Amino acid sequence: MASTVHDVRITGGRVVSTFTGEEFAADVLLRGDTISGVVPPGTPAEAHEEVDAAGMLVVPGFVDAHMHIESSFLTPRTFAALTLARGTTTVLADPHEIVNVAGADAMRWMIEAGRDTPQTQLWGVPSCVPALEGLEHAGASLSAEDIDEMLGWPGVIALGEVMDYRAVVADDARMRGIVGAARERGVVLDGHCPNLSGAELSAYMATGVDSDHTKNRTEVVLEKARMGMLMMLQEKCLLPEVVEALRALPQLPPLCLVTDDLAADHILTTGHLDHIARVAVAAGLPAVDVLRALTWNPAQRMRLYDRGVVAPGKRADLVLLRGELADFRVGRVFAGGRLVARDGAAVYASGEPDGGGLAGTVDVEPQTADGFCWREPGLPDGTHTFRAMRVNPRDTYTEAAEVELPVVNGEVDWEGRVVLVRVRNRYGRPGTVFAPLLGRDLSAGAIATTYAHDSHNLVTVGTSRAAMAAAADAVVADGGGVAVVRGEQVAARLPLPVGGVMSPASAREIAARSGEVRRALVGWGWDHLNPFMSVSTLTLAVSPSLKITDRSLVDVLRRAPVGALANNG
Amino acid sequence: MASTVHDVRITGGRVVSTFTGEEFAADVLLRGDTISGVVPPGTPAEAHEEVDAAGMLVVPGFVDAHMHIESSFLTPRTFAALTLARGTTTVLADPHEIVNVAGADAMRWMIEAGRDTPQTQLWGVPSCVPALEGLEHAGASLSAEDIDEMLGWPGVIALGEVMDYRAVVADDARMRGIVGAARERGVVLDGHCPNLSGAELSAYMATGVDSDHTKNRTEVVLEKARMGMLMMLQEKCLLPEVVEALRALPQLPPLCLVTDDLAADHILTTGHLDHIARVAVAAGLPAVDVLRALTWNPAQRMRLYDRGVVAPGKRADLVLLRGELADFRVGRVFAGGRLVARDGAAVYASGEPDGGGLAGTVDVEPQTADGFCWREPGLPDGTHTFRAMRVNPRDTYTEAAEVELPVVNGEVDWEGRVVLVRVRNRYGRPGTVFAPLLGRDLSAGAIATTYAHDSHNLVTVGTSRAAMAAAADAVVADGGGVAVVRGEQVAARLPLPVGGVMSPASAREIAARSGEVRRALVGWGWDHLNPFMSVSTLTLAVSPSLKITDRSLVDVLRRAPVGALANNG
Repeated sequence: MASTVHDVRITGGRVVSTFTGEEFAADVLLRGDTISGVVPPGTPAEAHEEVDAAGMLVVPGFVDAHMHIESSFLTPRTFAALTLARGTTTVLADPHEIVNVAGADAMRWMIEAGRDTPQTQLWGVPSCVPALEGLEHAGASLSAEDIDEMLGWPGVIALGEVMDYRAVVADDARMRGIVGAARERGVVLDGHCPNLSGAELSAYMATGVDSDHTKNRTEVVLEKARMGMLMMLQEKCLLPEVVEALRALPQLPPLCLVTDDLAADHILTTGHLDHIARVAVAAGLPAVDVLRALTWNPAQRMRLYDRGVVAPGKRADLVLLRGELADFRVGRVFAGGRLVARDGAAVYASGEPDGGGLAGTVDVEPQTADGFCWREPGLPDGTHTFRAMRVNPRDTYTEAAEVELPVVNGEVDWEGRVVLVRVRNRYGRPGTVFAPLLGRDLSAGAIATTYAHDSHNLVTVGTSRAAMAAAADAVVADGGGVAVVRGEQVAARLPLPVGGVMSPASAREIAARSGEVRRALVGWGWDHLNPFMSVSTLTLAVSPSLKITDRSLVDVLRRAPVGALANNG
Repeated sequence: MASTVHDVRITGGRVVSTFTGEEFAADVLLRGDTISGVVPPGTPAEAHEEVDAAGMLVVPGFVDAHMHIESSFLTPRTFAALTLARGTTTVLADPHEIVNVAGADAMRWMIEAGRDTPQTQLWGVPSCVPALEGLEHAGASLSAEDIDEMLGWPGVIALGEVMDYRAVVADDARMRGIVGAARERGVVLDGHCPNLSGAELSAYMATGVDSDHTKNRTEVVLEKARMGMLMMLQEKCLLPEVVEALRALPQLPPLCLVTDDLAADHILTTGHLDHIARVAVAAGLPAVDVLRALTWNPAQRMRLYDRGVVAPGKRADLVLLRGELADFRVGRVFAGGRLVARDGAAVYASGEPDGGGLAGTVDVEPQTADGFCWREPGLPDGTHTFRAMRVNPRDTYTEAAEVELPVVNGEVDWEGRVVLVRVRNRYGRPGTVFAPLLGRDLSAGAIATTYAHDSHNLVTVGTSRAAMAAAADAVVADGGGVAVVRGEQVAARLPLPVGGVMSPASAREIAARSGEVRRALVGWGWDHLNPFMSVSTLTLAVSPSLKITDRSLVDVLRRAPVGALANNG
């Protein structure tokens, strides 16, 4: 054999094969960014450096085939450092939040911002900007031509989740053009179609979209898998009954574990893909299947043939795990042959925050109490029945409800009667829409945010005009972000000056401020498993059933704008 | 939903999911070359044509990730018709036989010859032309630069099996250049490394080669799978003990079933991938795992994302099976949406033989008995101990043996004492090498062929000079091929004028003539499971242990030329 000098020799560990599920004693040799050997312990081989992995398991770096960096509130560079420390060495990021804010410029900025990190960040072009054409105004609008061009950019490998599945099923011309352009390019086509089934599922898949990462009823999970849709499971999908049903099949379908949306504080305290892996194990998926769904399967999905298995010739993205495989407890992390993290902390220098960018994206008038007067000029005085959004403590779906409110001089007298939601276009357009919100028992206060799926307009929810104005004013002053007001004082504040959805600050600072926001929301009475998410999705008009945008209330299932009055179609 | 008119509706069948292993009732809709729907039976949908699949299973077209078209003796067009009828809709063909004969021109000819068939024929560039640089002369020699250029040709997706694994392990400069070029191109890198293990296996894989389709001891199959090598199983690998060992692993590794080398008569009478599938089932692999190894896994390996599963949006390559899945009994076959075969016969017009090509590749002197005088001019009269190749009735390995033969006037007196093998360079070069062959009890006769792995020189084996000359003369007269002589008469003849390894004739004719060759060989006393293969591999100097080329005898394990005398290194 050639007398090669290797850079690193990882000795004493046990490699876990993502092909056979076996653990076996082997030394792993690295040279440059590549695994230059996986050899029986004690095999003579010269290396510049030795790493002791006694008692540890050596597994491939984790690969996240569906996620949005913006959910962390971090910029790509800071995100890389935080998640590399959790073992995530490769991500396919769909930057649909920031691209809704600032279009192709934002896409370019994201790609550049993450370029020099040791994490492989690959990109999907957001397919639905705005999410619902005609029903909302985002900061940008991408045509099929725009998307086609971006699909040719270096680092771009996919069309991001095709969320407007109703338009696809209805063979809407715009979505047909977008999906068709991506298909022509031959890129990965990612989907989003909760509980879509039968002939409609077939029509959606016939366009070439072949993955789904949304939460589905168990029987729909099975139907989709049977139909050849690649199932990507995020935390909320990893229920014991789903895992049990999958394991009862004649064959386990190819699965990917994905994070989709995880906030910085969650990643810092609970984990990233390592956490999803533990959730999967807890739900009953055998650890070896979890590992394959974390490495080989997503690498195949992303068409990355150089990773997903600890094998000679593959990329030296490695995670050294402490304890049992099922614990997914990350010790050291190598990316491209380089030690990048140790026991939860990045150990490379460029994990520092970057300088920001994409500033000045919040273009609205000064926020005053008057802006929260809900005017319905056409309405006669008297009590009217208004549509209302009823929220729940579990998921991000809303129910269409009704509430009677008095109208005096063309103004709805809502204060003290209901919680109000206002969506204000923040891209220099006139749109302002109000709706009552039911299902929360709140003390006096408000929350405002420019992080609101997917157009990221300025959303304010509160119990009084003054509180709402205070929250909205704080957010505008910060150039975007989140502010929670208790009484009439700002109780928590998360500035997100990068496009109004991200911060250049460190992960630790963002995590701390996110925690404050969450605690302030909970203290206010905002009862939800994921409090901030349940605010930021009030505007997500692809998710059932009554949502609100800067243009109108939206009946999601009918994909139609509806008026404020309950009897108004 | 859009009111689409489909081309074909396949009704009444049960689809087998290659994701879940389930069978489920569904109608399959085709439009153009694509599956336009997989819908519950009875779903309203208009189609121009209806196909009744009652009682049949609908599965994806079979994908062969490792094979050589030349082994069938057919040209690509005729091969397509024959194997489409067996359900093989996609192949990755490594034309290393014909490229050893005629280099890049032959590669170009093959690609063109198969272009208009409904079978997807994709190509690997032969990596080892000649198979053993310095130990044999083929009709061509490909440098790393030649190979790099051919890797850029349309239809080329792989570097063909890197057979000279000893050179790779030894970090030989030529093989390093070739594998490096392919790696740089990012194509699939296919391997060939029987029983390679431990640190040597690691060194081989470190170059990026990550598949193997050779026969390995069971423990080496497991080691390779564990190491992340994609195991491709051909008939001889599909032993019950191998399958049992694979099934006992914590996870079944990704497997591909491949044909490697199958002759036309075998395909016609026994089958192609459908036959390999039945062998796998008989060896104990569950039918659903067999199906995945026949469809989804090889499609992934070949980076074909549009096939391997019956799903809307995927390519309409479909096989309708009669009976149980485990029977793999092919009824109808669709390729690219078009019915191409029914009950074992192609039903499209262009399955006709083509006009040939690559003629005049046998450049040798007239074949006379004098050419089979084994002269050893330097040797004194007397008895000498010569190296001999001992063959067996089972595999294509040979053993190094010895035999004493008298030498008179510088000529070895072999007639009546041993069977003789002569290899004669057929590309206008001087090389002629002789060796005794042990292990066969033959009546008077001979066989000659220009189909002899991998250089395809003129190989003749026989009991007398006259018989050998008659056989060799017949082959030369045919422009290449095979001839068997019983006594001194030609008993069977298979002309292969296309490069001396293929025929423009129909599959049926080739099968008939191949059958005659086989029967003549068996009648002669040539006792082997695959008689012709055991002749054509006497020259395969990558396969243990003593082989013969036009330059010398070769000690395969030492990868070294050795002399005729047993005591001569």
